[in-house]
Amino acid sequence: MDDISQKLEAFNCPVPLSQHEAILLGHGSGGTLTHELIKCLFQKHLGNEYLNAGNDAAVLPSSNGEKLVISTDAHIVSPLFFPGGDIGRLAVCGTVNDVAMMGARVEALTASFIIEEGLPISDLERIVVSMEKACREANVKIVAGDTKVTAHGDCDGLFISTSGFGWLPSGRQIAGDLAQPGDAVIVSGPLGNHGVAIVQARGDLGFTSSVQSDVAPLNGMIATLLESIPDVHVLRDPTRGGLATTLVEIARQSGVSIELEENKLPIDQAVRAVCDMLGLDPLYMANEGKLVLILPEASAQKALGVLRAHQYGQKAALIGKVHEKSSGKVWLRTTLGTTRVLDMLTSEMLPRIC
Amino acid sequence: MDDISQKLEAFNCPVPLSQHEAILLGHGSGGTLTHELIKCLFQKHLGNEYLNAGNDAAVLPSSNGEKLVISTDAHIVSPLFFPGGDIGRLAVCGTVNDVAMMGARVEALTASFIIEEGLPISDLERIVVSMEKACREANVKIVAGDTKVTAHGDCDGLFISTSGFGWLPSGRQIAGDLAQPGDAVIVSGPLGNHGVAIVQARGDLGFTSSVQSDVAPLNGMIATLLESIPDVHVLRDPTRGGLATTLVEIARQSGVSIELEENKLPIDQAVRAVCDMLGLDPLYMANEGKLVLILPEASAQKALGVLRAHQYGQKAALIGKVHEKSSGKVWLRTTLGTTRVLDMLTSEMLPRIC
Repeated sequence: MDDISQKLEAFNCPVPLSQHEAILLGHGSGGTLTHELIKCLFQKHLGNEYLNAGNDAAVLPSSNGEKLVISTDAHIVSPLFFPGGDIGRLAVCGTVNDVAMMGARVEALTASFIIEEGLPISDLERIVVSMEKACREANVKIVAGDTKVTAHGDCDGLFISTSGFGWLPSGRQIAGDLAQPGDAVIVSGPLGNHGVAIVQARGDLGFTSSVQSDVAPLNGMIATLLESIPDVHVLRDPTRGGLATTLVEIARQSGVSIELEENKLPIDQAVRAVCDMLGLDPLYMANEGKLVLILPEASAQKALGVLRAHQYGQKAALIGKVHEKSSGKVWLRTTLGTTRVLDMLTSEMLPRIC
Repeated sequence: MDDISQKLEAFNCPVPLSQHEAILLGHGSGGTLTHELIKCLFQKHLGNEYLNAGNDAAVLPSSNGEKLVISTDAHIVSPLFFPGGDIGRLAVCGTVNDVAMMGARVEALTASFIIEEGLPISDLERIVVSMEKACREANVKIVAGDTKVTAHGDCDGLFISTSGFGWLPSGRQIAGDLAQPGDAVIVSGPLGNHGVAIVQARGDLGFTSSVQSDVAPLNGMIATLLESIPDVHVLRDPTRGGLATTLVEIARQSGVSIELEENKLPIDQAVRAVCDMLGLDPLYMANEGKLVLILPEASAQKALGVLRAHQYGQKAALIGKVHEKSSGKVWLRTTLGTTRVLDMLTSEMLPRIC
């Protein structure tokens, strides 16, 4: 047994990470391998109460009543421009959304750029202009930045890492471990559009479709939602790994099971057509402008009303409920009346989706 | 005139960025081209009072007496391991130091990893363990993270972006635009060690030297310094672009000139030898564990005493002073009695130094 295997055993890691020896594309999928890497390497060495909480953002105490919410994301989407957005809009919205998912008021972003030598400056400017527009829409400022350049061939065009900061009002508590048996599960709109838009932009389809990425800042809609419905338990955006992976994460964190009804899931015709043709599952396709909302069933209809009144929630739907049985599991009741267990995405379906 | 040139003209950009058409390695040097890119593209579109201040970190108001200090850095150093450190230690120390340079108490970091498929997991673990050690030394936690993986060939091994957050005690004001005529200029130790260590690690020398990177967290030393000497005007770490570029930045921000004395500059024999042989200038070589301190001359000797009592400031030296004349200029009084004007680094001397 080598040195690392011994350490992993001491940490009681379920799967020895070193059985892979090298990083696989799947370690970046947001699914099982990513969770293994996080648990068996990052949390093992860098773990603390904030990092281990496993939410979209960390909540830190501050000396005034509010708490500081902090999040970070690296964006490596390929191609840089795609139907409905680009890496700049994605980098702003992805981090704005992560902070907003804790119920916090997004205050500021940082952005660090890793640029490949030879990137046309006009492309970089288009991307920065897109960030400017997304920042204006989200009402947030980029307050600090960094720029690094690699030689041609040492990175692929442009990567943008953003971090976000916000303030959580005193008393508000929204987190992945707060789903309760009896809660309703709502999604704010159709699933899989971002993933399909990226597949399409890569020219992998062999045909064209009308699907656009849903990438959008959700902090405005969330603020409106929380004003009228304070008793929200969980908010999360189903990005990499899609709705299924996100719900499995929540089910495990909360120690509950979640039942979904297939015929309630909002999926656009065009997305379904592309997925059918390519053998992809919309439940595992990334979204960049959707949220999953878990809250007491009594508030579900009111929440749907609030979401549907907002431009980014017009097709919001009640898709399932939270149960106690078989903790950590997510079940899909299919249109055929059968039951399918959903697990996390296990390998990499579409690398560099975000 | 194309569209971008028109916009740049409207922004009154001194050098039209679009004359380059594509990003050059020099845009990541930390010198003139980087400053042009920041001013003519990032600040042009994303600018606000925080970003435009041009300090190592942004200072945001909070609802309590203290202010929130935020910074970010992308780390793309090559190779990943070098004498005296690695990309993990660099990613922690670089951002800890940027927050500390504002006089803030460093509270927390985020870290986002962009990993190339095929990176040995044992290398990644060595790097994460090194981050753990640096975090412990700096007394800081990583509270949020993200992991992305690219296909083999789409990035070079590993890039780590870190952001840092800290609290600035009420009333404390340290910034690049606060240097005053009559102030003393101090550096905390020998110059250029990090840059030379990287050159050496790349095997570019054709011989071996004993130079180790100085990469270290400076927040402890700064806290001690500010306890006994509250009237510090400027603190900055002379990283990419070296001491010369850092002092030109400060001279321009403060509208002063700075005079350095060559025979006072602390430079290790081995660093000088390597630089002489390769035609490199230690004044432009990166440091990752040094600070430049500008403060009233009356406090200079006391500051030297405090720095020299600390493990990272043993060779601290008084190297020059601040003048009013020819604002924005930095002068070196050479050992020959002549005067040399120092400008920012203009192109890329050593890509991927940090």
